[in-house]
Amino acid sequence: MLFGNNPTNNFMKKLVSTLAIGLTTLSSVAAQAWEEPRDTTVWNSADWTLVAQQPLTMSWTTSDIHHRQFKAPVDVALAADTVVTAWRGERLGVEALVVATQATPELSVRLAPWHTPAGAAAPEANAAFMRYVITNTFRACGEPPEGLPTYTVPDLIDLPEASAQLEAQSVRPIWVTVEVSREAPAGAYTTALELVEQGSGKVVASLPLRVNVLERQLPAPADYAFYLDLWQQPYAISRFEGVERWSPEHIEALRPYMEMLARAGQKTITAILFYEPWGVQSNDKFSPMVETILGKDGQWRYDYTILDRYIELCDEYGISDAIECFSMVPWDMTFRYLNEATGEYENLKTTTTTQEYADLWTSFLKSLAAHMQERGWLDRTMIAMDERGLSDMLNAYDIAQKAVPGLKMSLAGNYHPELIDDLQLYTLMIEDFFPADVLQRRKDAGQVSLMYTCCASPAPNQFSNSEPADNAYLPIYATATGFDGYLHWSFSNWTDEPLTDTRFKLFAPGDTYFIYPGGRSSIRYERMVEGIQLSEKLRILEAEALAAGDLQAYAALQQAMLPLRTGAMTKAIPTSQIVTALQRYANQ
Amino acid sequence: MLFGNNPTNNFMKKLVSTLAIGLTTLSSVAAQAWEEPRDTTVWNSADWTLVAQQPLTMSWTTSDIHHRQFKAPVDVALAADTVVTAWRGERLGVEALVVATQATPELSVRLAPWHTPAGAAAPEANAAFMRYVITNTFRACGEPPEGLPTYTVPDLIDLPEASAQLEAQSVRPIWVTVEVSREAPAGAYTTALELVEQGSGKVVASLPLRVNVLERQLPAPADYAFYLDLWQQPYAISRFEGVERWSPEHIEALRPYMEMLARAGQKTITAILFYEPWGVQSNDKFSPMVETILGKDGQWRYDYTILDRYIELCDEYGISDAIECFSMVPWDMTFRYLNEATGEYENLKTTTTTQEYADLWTSFLKSLAAHMQERGWLDRTMIAMDERGLSDMLNAYDIAQKAVPGLKMSLAGNYHPELIDDLQLYTLMIEDFFPADVLQRRKDAGQVSLMYTCCASPAPNQFSNSEPADNAYLPIYATATGFDGYLHWSFSNWTDEPLTDTRFKLFAPGDTYFIYPGGRSSIRYERMVEGIQLSEKLRILEAEALAAGDLQAYAALQQAMLPLRTGAMTKAIPTSQIVTALQRYANQ
Repeated sequence: MLFGNNPTNNFMKKLVSTLAIGLTTLSSVAAQAWEEPRDTTVWNSADWTLVAQQPLTMSWTTSDIHHRQFKAPVDVALAADTVVTAWRGERLGVEALVVATQATPELSVRLAPWHTPAGAAAPEANAAFMRYVITNTFRACGEPPEGLPTYTVPDLIDLPEASAQLEAQSVRPIWVTVEVSREAPAGAYTTALELVEQGSGKVVASLPLRVNVLERQLPAPADYAFYLDLWQQPYAISRFEGVERWSPEHIEALRPYMEMLARAGQKTITAILFYEPWGVQSNDKFSPMVETILGKDGQWRYDYTILDRYIELCDEYGISDAIECFSMVPWDMTFRYLNEATGEYENLKTTTTTQEYADLWTSFLKSLAAHMQERGWLDRTMIAMDERGLSDMLNAYDIAQKAVPGLKMSLAGNYHPELIDDLQLYTLMIEDFFPADVLQRRKDAGQVSLMYTCCASPAPNQFSNSEPADNAYLPIYATATGFDGYLHWSFSNWTDEPLTDTRFKLFAPGDTYFIYPGGRSSIRYERMVEGIQLSEKLRILEAEALAAGDLQAYAALQQAMLPLRTGAMTKAIPTSQIVTALQRYANQ
Repeated sequence: MLFGNNPTNNFMKKLVSTLAIGLTTLSSVAAQAWEEPRDTTVWNSADWTLVAQQPLTMSWTTSDIHHRQFKAPVDVALAADTVVTAWRGERLGVEALVVATQATPELSVRLAPWHTPAGAAAPEANAAFMRYVITNTFRACGEPPEGLPTYTVPDLIDLPEASAQLEAQSVRPIWVTVEVSREAPAGAYTTALELVEQGSGKVVASLPLRVNVLERQLPAPADYAFYLDLWQQPYAISRFEGVERWSPEHIEALRPYMEMLARAGQKTITAILFYEPWGVQSNDKFSPMVETILGKDGQWRYDYTILDRYIELCDEYGISDAIECFSMVPWDMTFRYLNEATGEYENLKTTTTTQEYADLWTSFLKSLAAHMQERGWLDRTMIAMDERGLSDMLNAYDIAQKAVPGLKMSLAGNYHPELIDDLQLYTLMIEDFFPADVLQRRKDAGQVSLMYTCCASPAPNQFSNSEPADNAYLPIYATATGFDGYLHWSFSNWTDEPLTDTRFKLFAPGDTYFIYPGGRSSIRYERMVEGIQLSEKLRILEAEALAAGDLQAYAALQQAMLPLRTGAMTKAIPTSQIVTALQRYANQ
């Protein structure tokens, strides 16, 4: 099935106001045509006789489950009306489900004009069809078992202008995004979700939507207390777009993802110092952002053009806390440089204990620090490590500190008592914890302590086969258990066919990315933003209760967070239940 | 090696004041001789050259590790002085370690006369050698792997009068128990732990001990809010003692264990309705406490003599909340009765869906309820189920409710939404949780919700190979995560040689019992009591902060409990660290 009625040769270029972080910029990226995968799961077709026998219905539904393509929605809550509560400054996602018992013509989706409180502007908002992508049940590291059956989940949120046609006995979810302005007056904002037959322009289904905006206000995303650290992979984007790495076209293609990162409150920039820090787990190999040259004179020289350009790009979007530089301890301990004498790239393969390693990095780091100092970025610069052997990390740390005393370091990995005071940014895997006194000491020292998930934690996680609520759960779980935020190693490490197949040769499907080409969002991204916002709400409510000396409010909040703190361990309580209860609590 | 210098033919009988729940009664049970197992682990004997080269030293040490028999204590904190803080009403355990580089003569251990605040009585207290028992590394259900190597841990706390002789290059821990009276004035109570050479009566080592008693007071054990539900196995005790089941000698032999249960705040009585509810997992088969007789007239009759005697015994010790009656759904669904016509025992093997099952139980329960009503016990009576198939449990529930409307039920098992409102006592396995609203509804209804551990949870647990702090951790973990208390299925299910070998044919070693013959305690029992007391402290501090509207105190307490609430999931934070931090917090 082909869909998307406005295919272009490539994604449209666009001019982006660097301040406009929102929906309009996303929606101006044009749609691209691709063939949506078709689910091959065999369902009990008799269930379709239990569905209301109109040719087509549209209802509000839950975003806590993956609405399967050809499964009769007999056990799904469907509602004709919905009321959503929001704080000012909140981005909302509301899901609807189109159910077709008969094949439909080509349909589009839109929001009717808003009714707002007197004098209030309409919120930025849009509606878009969700698209199915391939996943499977694998939730582990390493290679999935051969021949594991696949199925599809509607993870991808298409662009608002895209259209869709439904087969008989199929469903199609729709995602409605509403950005409530931080300045919006409190009150009721109403619209309707409309399904339009493309040929006739006739509205074939309409659903009222009411957003109750409270007086309460979230910070701007750049001011979120929640520390979000999603590692970026710019080279998947240049590859998929067919543009040259770091060409102006590449920079433009990165912008929608910068906006998404910024909207979620991203704090970190992923800078690559040497070719390919991760090896086999990178589908697109990472070029360095610094060109390292061994001059004819035997002296090292460095070209920071790309690094500067990338940092400047991120800075445009307010992603301005840490610059994480990978990696002194890459996966295969090989460091590529340009040999000026031969004009060829050569590789130094070494270990952290050699003199050549110490020499290479001493020279590099002194130069890097001088450059970053000159640009006013040194305080943000961190030598970043993904989990490697402790002795290697300690060696690297020592060399770095000798070269540039006080140079900051970051690590995502195991808990090492040897490193707790040295790492500015220290991220532990979910279900590992800092001892309470260590966590407090790190807070007092202005150090940041994060939680990460990767292929090693089956659930909750952010795979394409995870429960959708997991993405909202992870940020509040991190916050409630004492962490400053959440890290994921792969925001945009696209597979070969990211629009259709979330499986990579390694890891659980979807582990490597959760946004899509063309600036397309996903239920996973949207629900992660939901969780980050909910974390902000909980922090604000807690700080208010403490400042006001309101024991009752504080105790009620602690009580509300108790299942969150303990519930991750249980299969009896789904993450959706915990997220829903806390949302209700925060919005009461 | 034989030890125990006062062997008797059997355990001495003793008269027990039914009010004297304390140490004196335990210490009057005479020692019995047995051969202590010898650890066969091969250590690096060079480590012994690093130990202080006196022939014998004695130091205070941690109870967070198992001090291995022949391991040089080179990595163990040893202190010459110790100060312990206690609330009034608290039972304290303090551990010392004797280190012998040369073989010693026969030694005894005692406490020197106390120095107390003016006019204050000395606390009840004693010191006793700890004994090594066999364990292995198995932490799972089912049969351990064949040929798994064994090792020994000093789990058993011997009677105070027992003596010990140390081999060269060996250690021997000592356990000091102090019962601080609820009426003791606050202040410093000091004594010394003395090691005495038996032949000469010479004190060969002495260690000062100071107990700082705070003004704060714990409730009496019977008034603990913490709900302790340890299932009892009286028949292991009669077997080991060589006395007839339910003879006066059996009753006397049970008394030390009743005292231990009562001291820990036990709330439940384990009553057995039919022969052997558990089948293969019972080393000693459970006789019924009710004799069920099919009369020559075809009518059922019941003899409650044993049941009454057992309940009366438990009541003497204030174990007076629930009487859990096992089992309508036993492991093999066989119900034994005496056929008066033949004079033989016969078995009814059936299922919960048959008429004969319904008839058997309707008659039985009507009679039981009438009897319990007459004795004033009906309100405490609960039909108890260990996890069985849901449909069987629902069938049993229906039959019971038809026979005796309102009859209470209890279950230790999985989370079944079908049962949450019907079970007066409902226990989930550690890491399973009730949804917050369900837990609150149960609390509001006066129902009790507990956490249990069994062979299925490797850690924390109360196996003989568990970390000793796990026993203290489990009660506070249960409390902090919202449960009313803790359940374990086996308090006294002794193995064939319980004094020497904690391994059973099934389960992790020690899973089936954690007290020893002769009224002997264990580090596991003592540390469980520590955890229950700590849970009381936390509840009291929380209630005080709420009552006083003291937000700062309340917030600090929540902060202190945070690692407890989340820490069970981690291997990075040992339970001992969490217990120690909370003890410090509660005693500050």
